[in-house]
Amino acid sequence: MWDQTLEALSTIEQKTGQRLGDPADPLLVSVRSGARASMPGMMDTVLNLGLNDASVEGLGRLTSNPRFAYDAYRRFISLFGRIVQGIPAEKFDHVFDAAKERAGVEQDPELSADQLQSVVAEFKDVARRETGSDFPTDPIEQLRQAIQAVFGSWMGRRAVDYRRAEKIPDEWGTAVNVQTMVFGNMGEDSGTGVAFTRNPSTGEKLLYGNFLANAQGEDVVAGIRNAEPISAMEAHNPQVYAEFECYAAQLERAYRDMQDLEFTVERGKLYMLQTRSGKRTGRAAVKIAVDMVAEGILSKDEALLRVEPRHVEQLLLPRFDEAAKAEAEGAGHLVARGVPASPGAAVGEAVFDPDRAAERVESGARVILVRPETSPDDFHGMIGARGILTSRGGTSSHAAVVARGLGKPCIVGAESVRVDLDRRVLSVDGREVSEGDVISIDGGTGEVLLGEITTVEPNFAEDRDLQQVLSWADERRRLGTWANADRARDAIRAREFGAEGIGLCRTEHMFEEPERLPFVRQMILNAAAAKRDPDARRHYLAALEKLLGYQRGDFKELLLAMDGRPVIIRLLDPPLHEFLPKYEDLLVDVTEMRVRGETGPARDEREELLQAVAQMREANPMLGLRGCRLGILYPEINEMQVRAILEAAVELKQEGRHPHPEIMIPLIGDIRELRRVQEQLVQVAREVEARAGTDVDYKFGTMIEIPRAAITADKIAEEAEFFSFGTNDLTQTVYGFSRDDAEGKFLGFYQDQKILPNNPFQVLDPEGVGALVEMGVQRGRSTRPDLEIGICGEHGGDPESIAFCHKVGLDYVSASPYRVPIARLAAAQAAIRGG
Amino acid sequence: MWDQTLEALSTIEQKTGQRLGDPADPLLVSVRSGARASMPGMMDTVLNLGLNDASVEGLGRLTSNPRFAYDAYRRFISLFGRIVQGIPAEKFDHVFDAAKERAGVEQDPELSADQLQSVVAEFKDVARRETGSDFPTDPIEQLRQAIQAVFGSWMGRRAVDYRRAEKIPDEWGTAVNVQTMVFGNMGEDSGTGVAFTRNPSTGEKLLYGNFLANAQGEDVVAGIRNAEPISAMEAHNPQVYAEFECYAAQLERAYRDMQDLEFTVERGKLYMLQTRSGKRTGRAAVKIAVDMVAEGILSKDEALLRVEPRHVEQLLLPRFDEAAKAEAEGAGHLVARGVPASPGAAVGEAVFDPDRAAERVESGARVILVRPETSPDDFHGMIGARGILTSRGGTSSHAAVVARGLGKPCIVGAESVRVDLDRRVLSVDGREVSEGDVISIDGGTGEVLLGEITTVEPNFAEDRDLQQVLSWADERRRLGTWANADRARDAIRAREFGAEGIGLCRTEHMFEEPERLPFVRQMILNAAAAKRDPDARRHYLAALEKLLGYQRGDFKELLLAMDGRPVIIRLLDPPLHEFLPKYEDLLVDVTEMRVRGETGPARDEREELLQAVAQMREANPMLGLRGCRLGILYPEINEMQVRAILEAAVELKQEGRHPHPEIMIPLIGDIRELRRVQEQLVQVAREVEARAGTDVDYKFGTMIEIPRAAITADKIAEEAEFFSFGTNDLTQTVYGFSRDDAEGKFLGFYQDQKILPNNPFQVLDPEGVGALVEMGVQRGRSTRPDLEIGICGEHGGDPESIAFCHKVGLDYVSASPYRVPIARLAAAQAAIRGG
Repeated sequence: MWDQTLEALSTIEQKTGQRLGDPADPLLVSVRSGARASMPGMMDTVLNLGLNDASVEGLGRLTSNPRFAYDAYRRFISLFGRIVQGIPAEKFDHVFDAAKERAGVEQDPELSADQLQSVVAEFKDVARRETGSDFPTDPIEQLRQAIQAVFGSWMGRRAVDYRRAEKIPDEWGTAVNVQTMVFGNMGEDSGTGVAFTRNPSTGEKLLYGNFLANAQGEDVVAGIRNAEPISAMEAHNPQVYAEFECYAAQLERAYRDMQDLEFTVERGKLYMLQTRSGKRTGRAAVKIAVDMVAEGILSKDEALLRVEPRHVEQLLLPRFDEAAKAEAEGAGHLVARGVPASPGAAVGEAVFDPDRAAERVESGARVILVRPETSPDDFHGMIGARGILTSRGGTSSHAAVVARGLGKPCIVGAESVRVDLDRRVLSVDGREVSEGDVISIDGGTGEVLLGEITTVEPNFAEDRDLQQVLSWADERRRLGTWANADRARDAIRAREFGAEGIGLCRTEHMFEEPERLPFVRQMILNAAAAKRDPDARRHYLAALEKLLGYQRGDFKELLLAMDGRPVIIRLLDPPLHEFLPKYEDLLVDVTEMRVRGETGPARDEREELLQAVAQMREANPMLGLRGCRLGILYPEINEMQVRAILEAAVELKQEGRHPHPEIMIPLIGDIRELRRVQEQLVQVAREVEARAGTDVDYKFGTMIEIPRAAITADKIAEEAEFFSFGTNDLTQTVYGFSRDDAEGKFLGFYQDQKILPNNPFQVLDPEGVGALVEMGVQRGRSTRPDLEIGICGEHGGDPESIAFCHKVGLDYVSASPYRVPIARLAAAQAAIRGG
Repeated sequence: MWDQTLEALSTIEQKTGQRLGDPADPLLVSVRSGARASMPGMMDTVLNLGLNDASVEGLGRLTSNPRFAYDAYRRFISLFGRIVQGIPAEKFDHVFDAAKERAGVEQDPELSADQLQSVVAEFKDVARRETGSDFPTDPIEQLRQAIQAVFGSWMGRRAVDYRRAEKIPDEWGTAVNVQTMVFGNMGEDSGTGVAFTRNPSTGEKLLYGNFLANAQGEDVVAGIRNAEPISAMEAHNPQVYAEFECYAAQLERAYRDMQDLEFTVERGKLYMLQTRSGKRTGRAAVKIAVDMVAEGILSKDEALLRVEPRHVEQLLLPRFDEAAKAEAEGAGHLVARGVPASPGAAVGEAVFDPDRAAERVESGARVILVRPETSPDDFHGMIGARGILTSRGGTSSHAAVVARGLGKPCIVGAESVRVDLDRRVLSVDGREVSEGDVISIDGGTGEVLLGEITTVEPNFAEDRDLQQVLSWADERRRLGTWANADRARDAIRAREFGAEGIGLCRTEHMFEEPERLPFVRQMILNAAAAKRDPDARRHYLAALEKLLGYQRGDFKELLLAMDGRPVIIRLLDPPLHEFLPKYEDLLVDVTEMRVRGETGPARDEREELLQAVAQMREANPMLGLRGCRLGILYPEINEMQVRAILEAAVELKQEGRHPHPEIMIPLIGDIRELRRVQEQLVQVAREVEARAGTDVDYKFGTMIEIPRAAITADKIAEEAEFFSFGTNDLTQTVYGFSRDDAEGKFLGFYQDQKILPNNPFQVLDPEGVGALVEMGVQRGRSTRPDLEIGICGEHGGDPESIAFCHKVGLDYVSASPYRVPIARLAAAQAAIRGG
């Protein structure tokens, strides 16, 4: 091996006319591991190898830059010392910092050649002290040691551990690269630059980058001189520029992707230093993919794999203008970070009350609703707001769920923000924002900024490149892409985004509309008593009758918006007490009234409500009286909803439309629950059909969101015509994590400490939750082979989770409307990768 | 078939000298399905078949009781009408009720023969109206129709559905029994009686029952005349009595069990009407089983199967004297029913405050602690109380869990009871119990009674029959029987009951002792801040140091009590806020202070505590920051506990003892959680061992109580040396049921409505929870074949669940101390039945 190395070295020396360690015209080389980039633990690069006290002088003369030469020497010694000799980096850092302090300078380039020469001497002392022998001055010896270190690192502990975990055989071994160093600072016929083969921001097919004459790469980085655009190189040296253009085109063709290139021109000769696929914005990624298919470089499949789902996401959301945001950050306007709950950028005046928010929106203002947390009472204020910011709650809090449904940017749990509702002031770290002051929030990053940041708005329908990519995706994917939408307007948007059905309509959000809430409360407060008290029963049924009218209208609009497409409507799911005032608020009210000695009907009413809410409170509402359990105890609520759905469908059919409602019974854990609820509701459906003399194409099915439902899916599929995996609740129960608590209290720490690789509420856990999903699919289809199966948890919009859904054979994924395009791409990628 | 029937009939007629429908000496028969008893939907019995207007007269003459004859005729018509002709029962009931009203009587026997004759006529009218033809007067026709009805019911819908569900082939068909009716009221040489072959209350080997001369069975039931003891029959007719004794002995030998016999003597001839195994008390069951082995009737295995686990339970608990209880009920003293949370009967004065309860106990009073619900603050009052009654909470509320641990009778969630702490009064339906008034509670039935009911106390150690049965059980069972015990005194009791180890020591209960609570709170309130604030850290560590001393003492006592046996100690599990005052109470305090305008340090302290508790509140504490998650965030708490355990063990070893602590890390969902916690704690253990120069025989393991742990049990067993299934939490997560909420809010309704066959928190659900247990066992042993596996949920004391544990191959079950004898028996039965 060593003989071959020496032979190769001699070839290099002949070609360059330079010699390793030659004091007159020294050859410098770099040594690195061929495996380094992809494998942790492999030896890093040693640059400038071949320097010693003699050759450094030669390099200084040759480059007319002794400072550069000594700096290169310093770097070499510290790299060699650290990587080859195993000396801790800080030993060198201390010496270097002390030298800068002595010289009274802050930046490295401020040190003079002489000062750097002293540093070199001190570095050699460090190496001597640490290794017990002189720093090697013979370049051949340096080379030998460096190469040995590369090979040695292959069997180092980190590398071995990594290979064991990744199941990479030890026998593969590593290559060693030894390369000639070249220099762009050898005069005006030299230079250095970086360039992308296409514009990484827009995707435009034009070389894009910078060139700096008579300079090394690090000068560009250090910002000592302003670099020129890459086109300036043409003026300096048209021939080299033409050569560079030619290489750039060749490299792009060879790697079949936009390249990020580094090069140096040494005395009129072009050296390509590095080529790699270039990072790019969503805009550029989509355009490059489309262009490269047109240019015949890529197949459609390849193009689809080149666009990342997050690229599509970028193109769908309003976002802050990068420059404007950077400027605001520089000015210290980034004041807090919360939990990113619903992405997108929003700007508006902070308003602390839903009524005032609605007023301000009415009068044309842009509003960010700021609350400690939100409840159904705040809904009217949320509808018109541009964005929502809360200081409490997790990503499944009311604010987060509603905001995602509305497609509005939202940050929750911004714990450093104090919201003072009385003073209408938000304070953070001593800075205050009063009602009416403008703030900007980024729901994708959780950032809260003071003042207005310019935003860029997307235009999905007219984005031809994106539409092209997505139409290819549609040809390729097997998974259907549906949307979660609670209202007709959301469904219309979802359809524009390409939704093929509605996978989840959460009817509870219809209950939150302010004009309905009184009837909802009347229904709830009389539901239990209705079983024995005729008065209560009358109030209960009257409220249901009223809600029937509202719901019929809701469902008619929704089914019309999705005419001809399936619409899965979930029956009322949350605990009923969620629609009532909070126990704690009532307790405070009543306590105040008691202490003040107030009497009269106002207090009586409040006391009564407190009693009622106290009765309904639950220790763990997530695992309490909700889902199908409600319908089993209070069947009239389900009946009202099913009647509303069927009556809406009947009306549409009579108007010549094609409604396809699918009625979803939530939180089933045992087939007997489903049987009981479904049998009763089928009666209601048949009755509506019979009365109208019209058949409706409806289905009954269930969410699989409780482990027991997945385990007994074979039985459940005997009744259910469709399954929809509610992976949010399934993740909560499979892990025993209350999302509201876990995300705020320990899940962040778990991720920081690598106890969990991801937030399992964002990326579906394949090992636990996924195992139950797979079990549910297999067992469900074992008794009903044509069972329609989808997923409607948030995971339905996550690319990694979508790949899992493809693998286990789901029929569709359902996600928030704006994530549908992302799902279309991710589903196609899953099909391409997974077959 | 019909020919054979007529032939058999003629044989009967020859033997009895009677003829079906004969006006002079009518033969009456009963017709019933041979399959009825075991199969729903099969035809019920038609009695007295063969009556018509002529033969009823003959029967009246023959029995010298026309009233009896017409009553028999009435019964026959309505039975035949309902069962054979399909006439709704209420048609007859209406007529009969009207007749009684006309006659001005309330009880059936008050109607005279004439009045009954009119009823018969009206019944025949009913039959004519409903069927459109006359009621059949020809006894042969009656017989034909009845037999047809039996065969027809085999293909009735309910019977078919039942067979389908139970997979019983249709081809089996049914038999038809036609039997002669006999009469005990044909004079003084006739009579009727019932008898057990042994005393069903004590098990004593003596005929036990009643005899009534010149009477039918229904006369005994109607209580028209007082029946005599069975021995009186000897005086009436020594020969028949001797014959009866002989049959009784034969039947007992034939069925190899104590028999419950019915017989009639008709004109000096003994007819045995029925024999079946007799119901018996626990006392009798145990004695009969032991005696029958001694008598050579049963093998030990058979004897073990004859004693039911609930029989053993009866013998272990104080119970109300049945007569005294019946009398109290008759007097209207049974005033409420709550949720039975911990069985046994208790009597004492109602006390509404834990401090006063402790005082009263101190001064020798028997106390029932009555609270709306309990919290750790009440613990000192619970220790001395005879029983606990709360108006709120479910069977996993604090009161229930602590009471079961203490082995004290407890009723929770007695919602009709209002507890007024200010007035120290409990009111229910307008009746009041003041502090000091005596009440009686039965924690096994949930009954609350006013006044004192006499109780009967058990004596386990001296109960020779029970000890005999349990020693046979010990020979036979494969499952180990361990106990859940949190304190040395519980462990000592458990050992007396035969516990072979401690399967669960809940260390949180040690934290509730009143003198420790201040340090526990100091630890909790400083835990989070300790990470950044040195002052908080100092307080935190000081509190831990203090608790270390307490815990070391606790563990030493516990390990000593179980010397030589394994003791599984679970590290702190519940959410920390459970040890703090309740948020709502603080909120009320603070609101009162605010309204009153109070200022000063008391208010500041309260406000601060409110803030701290508000920070720690959780939406779903059951799925929040608890279990191993605590130890991951605050490792010092775990370290303190493990140090205490190891130091206690070291001290014991140095005193020549043999401690075997097993340290259980709760709520693991992912192997990385366990690895992190366990690695850190093994260090602590080794450090203690090294310092003492003593090795301790300890293990580390985990609870499997989260679905994900069962699903990934193969990975988890790579670290864990033992598994203990926490089937309470596993049931909560597999079903998505919060036990605290489900039991109070809908589980009762679910059971009433047969949506669930059992309360899954009492009887392990084999299909869902059990499937995960089995998966956990198989996967766990796949990577660690010698994995020690048990169950420590309440199911460990439930016989059906124990059978499941046997079947899936667990090593042991662990239950409350007093359930250990039950578990010993149930484990033996599982082994006998399951092999």
